[in-house]
Amino acid sequence: MILRFDFGTPLHTGACVLSLPVQKDPVPFLTVSALAEGAVTLSLPLGQGDMLFGLGEQVGPVNRRGRRYVSWNSDEFNHTEDRQSLYGSHNFLLVWREKEPFALYLDDPGRVRWDLGWTRRDQMTVTSENGDFSLYLIVPEDGEKVCLDLCAQFRRLIGRSYIPPRWALGYIQSRWGYASAEDAREVAHAHRERGIPLDGICMDIDYMDGFRDFTWDHKAIPDLKGLCGDLKEQGIHLIPIIDAGVKKDPKYDFYREGHEKGYFCRKEDGEEFAAAVWPGLSAFPDFFRREARAWFGKGYEALLDEGLDGFWNDMNEPALFYSPEGLREAFGALEGRREALETGDYGAAFEMLGAVGGVKNAMADYRRFYHETDLGKTRHDRVHNLYGGLMTLSAAEAFERAAPEKRILLFSRSSFIGAHRWGGVWMGDNFSWWSHLKLHLRMLPSLNMAGFLYCGADVGGFGADTDEELLIRWLQLGVFTPLFRNHSALHTRLQEIYRFPAWETMRDIVSVRYALLPWLYSELMQAILWDRMLFRPLCFDYPRDETAREIEDQMMLGRDAMIAPVTEPHATGRNVYLPEDMLCVRFRTWEDRDLIRLPAGWHYVRAKEAEFLLFVRRGSFIPLCRPADRSDYVSTDSMYLVGWLGGEDAALPFYEDDGTVRDPEKEKGLSTLKAGKGWAWDPKGRKLDTAGLC
Amino acid sequence: MILRFDFGTPLHTGACVLSLPVQKDPVPFLTVSALAEGAVTLSLPLGQGDMLFGLGEQVGPVNRRGRRYVSWNSDEFNHTEDRQSLYGSHNFLLVWREKEPFALYLDDPGRVRWDLGWTRRDQMTVTSENGDFSLYLIVPEDGEKVCLDLCAQFRRLIGRSYIPPRWALGYIQSRWGYASAEDAREVAHAHRERGIPLDGICMDIDYMDGFRDFTWDHKAIPDLKGLCGDLKEQGIHLIPIIDAGVKKDPKYDFYREGHEKGYFCRKEDGEEFAAAVWPGLSAFPDFFRREARAWFGKGYEALLDEGLDGFWNDMNEPALFYSPEGLREAFGALEGRREALETGDYGAAFEMLGAVGGVKNAMADYRRFYHETDLGKTRHDRVHNLYGGLMTLSAAEAFERAAPEKRILLFSRSSFIGAHRWGGVWMGDNFSWWSHLKLHLRMLPSLNMAGFLYCGADVGGFGADTDEELLIRWLQLGVFTPLFRNHSALHTRLQEIYRFPAWETMRDIVSVRYALLPWLYSELMQAILWDRMLFRPLCFDYPRDETAREIEDQMMLGRDAMIAPVTEPHATGRNVYLPEDMLCVRFRTWEDRDLIRLPAGWHYVRAKEAEFLLFVRRGSFIPLCRPADRSDYVSTDSMYLVGWLGGEDAALPFYEDDGTVRDPEKEKGLSTLKAGKGWAWDPKGRKLDTAGLC
Repeated sequence: MILRFDFGTPLHTGACVLSLPVQKDPVPFLTVSALAEGAVTLSLPLGQGDMLFGLGEQVGPVNRRGRRYVSWNSDEFNHTEDRQSLYGSHNFLLVWREKEPFALYLDDPGRVRWDLGWTRRDQMTVTSENGDFSLYLIVPEDGEKVCLDLCAQFRRLIGRSYIPPRWALGYIQSRWGYASAEDAREVAHAHRERGIPLDGICMDIDYMDGFRDFTWDHKAIPDLKGLCGDLKEQGIHLIPIIDAGVKKDPKYDFYREGHEKGYFCRKEDGEEFAAAVWPGLSAFPDFFRREARAWFGKGYEALLDEGLDGFWNDMNEPALFYSPEGLREAFGALEGRREALETGDYGAAFEMLGAVGGVKNAMADYRRFYHETDLGKTRHDRVHNLYGGLMTLSAAEAFERAAPEKRILLFSRSSFIGAHRWGGVWMGDNFSWWSHLKLHLRMLPSLNMAGFLYCGADVGGFGADTDEELLIRWLQLGVFTPLFRNHSALHTRLQEIYRFPAWETMRDIVSVRYALLPWLYSELMQAILWDRMLFRPLCFDYPRDETAREIEDQMMLGRDAMIAPVTEPHATGRNVYLPEDMLCVRFRTWEDRDLIRLPAGWHYVRAKEAEFLLFVRRGSFIPLCRPADRSDYVSTDSMYLVGWLGGEDAALPFYEDDGTVRDPEKEKGLSTLKAGKGWAWDPKGRKLDTAGLC
Repeated sequence: MILRFDFGTPLHTGACVLSLPVQKDPVPFLTVSALAEGAVTLSLPLGQGDMLFGLGEQVGPVNRRGRRYVSWNSDEFNHTEDRQSLYGSHNFLLVWREKEPFALYLDDPGRVRWDLGWTRRDQMTVTSENGDFSLYLIVPEDGEKVCLDLCAQFRRLIGRSYIPPRWALGYIQSRWGYASAEDAREVAHAHRERGIPLDGICMDIDYMDGFRDFTWDHKAIPDLKGLCGDLKEQGIHLIPIIDAGVKKDPKYDFYREGHEKGYFCRKEDGEEFAAAVWPGLSAFPDFFRREARAWFGKGYEALLDEGLDGFWNDMNEPALFYSPEGLREAFGALEGRREALETGDYGAAFEMLGAVGGVKNAMADYRRFYHETDLGKTRHDRVHNLYGGLMTLSAAEAFERAAPEKRILLFSRSSFIGAHRWGGVWMGDNFSWWSHLKLHLRMLPSLNMAGFLYCGADVGGFGADTDEELLIRWLQLGVFTPLFRNHSALHTRLQEIYRFPAWETMRDIVSVRYALLPWLYSELMQAILWDRMLFRPLCFDYPRDETAREIEDQMMLGRDAMIAPVTEPHATGRNVYLPEDMLCVRFRTWEDRDLIRLPAGWHYVRAKEAEFLLFVRRGSFIPLCRPADRSDYVSTDSMYLVGWLGGEDAALPFYEDDGTVRDPEKEKGLSTLKAGKGWAWDPKGRKLDTAGLC
């Protein structure tokens, strides 16, 4: 059951698809207090064993209790443990406690602060700085698995998640620095030549003509359509980046049109707002306006015409390097302190660093421009967290117009709940740190709760220099995440698999992904179509298992599987907790694998560098298929089952479709794989390989 | 056996106390190549199972293979995983391999780059940028425990480690922000009132008169001697910070004397070098000169006269906020790009950030000044890594003059090998991150290898805001480290134990430290006097145990114990690997503890938030004493043994002295505790409590 309460004058954010009546009764569970300047605080006493889950894209443990967070979409490169905001804001929180568990969702486009037992461990407070929001309270309807129920109810409230094309589950290679057709062809060739599977190549900002959206450098890419076609023949999709800011350049048609039609955000005095991003001074489309979205969407449509069918939206928090106003203020501050600086005044020195560093993503700039929302002229900071998601909507609406039948790949850096219906997300600009490999794993369930199923982090790490072992271990996690992209930043170590001596090991890992792809696709699609999570903390499935509550380095995957990646350097194994009997599949290649039957409890399981682990519940199985170096060559014509049936018959719901149709009929794609002692077949009556069943 | 090879013209750094003949034969193991500009590279092929240990104070795993490091003492606040330099440089590396294991030490005062299998996993290269250094190669002499042997030989080469006073093993409370006598008295009172043990209070920079070394703010501290005396009556020592930079202020006597006598570093043109640090423009003593050290040391002597007997040296890399020259250059760069900035040129924006951010600890500044070394006028960057340690020597020489019989507490931020004879170190400005709790543990053995036994990290974390659970878990590690200091930065959450609702839990943890203190002191002193490590990776003690090689979150402690702290939020236990049968002591308070006999192998061991674990090898025991709230009240008159004898008799070498005498006779302090079934006594014939023996 979901109850809605309104505070102040909520904006219609589009996050929810169910239109619920507004309750007039007092809010249960939470104590509501009004603060100064319109802010509203919701507070809740916390009992000793209470656990808090959710908040989507944030650093920190899966159980978020004891920490502080701020919903404020931020271009935050330095994801250290104390960061309170990343690129997306996902105001869903699940309060799991013995008595009266519930979940809450703040449909609030502005800044929200979450003190989840940090100031006082027995108290949680949530503060909406605007004070204008809809609060949804979700209480369990049935079943013992309360968390799963609460998440499913929430997902019904916010609507069906984005469905990617099946090929988007293939391996994607990306790097900030790919600038030309030659670069793309070389990457394609290097993979194909070595048999490293590949379905996509992401082009970062350098492919553009001076960083102008929807353009490309015609010298470097003389024939985009030809390039797309050639690559597609090899099964490889080109995926360009699109940034939120549009270069303020009167000679640039796209800008001129947006400017003339008044589609850009304006300052209070009506002047077009501008700030520096990659192209230099840029204007920012007012994605709150349908007609601005339609205009911006035409850019995507034009690229679709060139043969592109995948996009990533970036810089859409929006990131602002600086505004001319902010810069002038910083210079002014410097000038005023110059004399003090000369005397060695350390305070002045820190002011100088602060003033100059503070020009980036400055709150003052987010207060300089306005949107036209359904509440009228609205200052950006009050609706900041919607901006990136509405850019995603602009693309989705364009795809709907231009290719209503076809799925287009789309993922974004910035997001809010609602945008999960229009695209996926990647986890932003992480680093080549082992701790970010762990973070990748930990963020999966909270993003799933918020509706983002097509997601993943930059495998190998974006910033800083990776090393071979880290990349291998990270690929072994990426194998299981829907978005499986290797991406790295300019000036960092080259990170394509083929750059490393151990590329064959890496190729074999990616090949396992392709062997698992039909099963992963089936699990992902079922999670999308039936409002389930693909990745879940163990305790969601095993609510009475107290040990399971603390396991944050393993995740349940799909209906019956569990992953437990190695996340420490030099390790040749790890401790794994099994909440029930499971089969451990230890992969070296998709064919060379060990099957180990393990009883419930703790086990130290070997997993040397070239090995990785997948666990399957006893009484179930998973299907593997013969891999290929492109996803469309991986078919379900022959399936190899692995599982531990222990003499019983077992069945696995299996979803399949053509991988491209926008709105699949969910029942039509669903069938059942069945297996027992010495036999297994699919619903078409084809026999399946049972050598991996025990 | 140790072989010495000289390259170029090595400076006498004072790191080694043995004077070994210089070999003329070719260097074994390593391939030596000369690079451009005088640099010299040593390279070594790495076999698959080879492991690399050492490098003292650095981030990353205990086994350092696969990573890059740079020996360059750095004031580096943001200790993320990819940092390659911290505050100290410790050029000792142990190459553990099946055939011909060895260790190497580069006695090199300049910048050294370590590529430990990062570029190529099968290759290690060490590059001395100066090319002037002594290389020591150590080969095993005897025994199966090769790593322990190599470390012990190295420690004999570099001489006996600093001996702290016994009270320095007590709990120390510190905070950047304590500024007055009132602050110190309040901290003392708040601890004493609640029975939280305390032996020291650190005063950070704010106690000084305008950040001038060896002064204090007479308004805030009208009677320093009285304050010291009052606190000492309560068993609490005041420990002031001393910074490397001396305020360039002609009205400040100490500066004037240094200036007039020419003790400060000069630029090439002979002018005194100045850079901004906390006091504003400051001059930097040339600690390479004995007479400059003697002059600077008089400052410590004057404070000794006030009753102080502990010091921490800081900012001695040296940290430089900026030099006037560097600042002018940065401003110049800004001016030149101002026009570009106005057009939103992102390149110019990053240049601006780079120019302003780059004024701090700039290499250009480290090349602006000179020292007088035994090689004559020497540019600072060529001997940079010695600077902080020579400041420590300046203090140590002063103590030798002023209080030759007494131990004075001294620890430093910056260090090199050699300085381990004069003082301890803390691990620098860490953060309130769980990963830094882990780093604290991991850095202990490498610092021990480098001779730094009196060491520890800022418990609770210096930067960022701690939370109660993190502080509790960190205290549970700090209990075992010789330096046990809670320290935090200005503007962060107040971090004294008594600020938290769970202060009683924290008090009980600290009380266990005091119950263990005589044993810890005995183990520390034995490690110092017999050139052993206090903390060791498991594989050093169990070289044939392959699992032990991967365990980096447990450490052997002293002769027979092992620690395994909980380093994850929300955990109520952890997996522990026992290389042999051990007794697990699970502490809640020093008296309320569980004794669990565990066989060798993996175990999931419960350790709820208020509980922590100590393991003791089967066949041995450790003594506990009745704790007090100050270390001098903890006596060995009554001892409670805990251990798992299993029917056998056992003996423990036990060291004790008065805790203050500078140069203890090592044999005199050593005795043996003996225990068997139902009996135990100390060498004085006193009966010991055997209720904890099984």
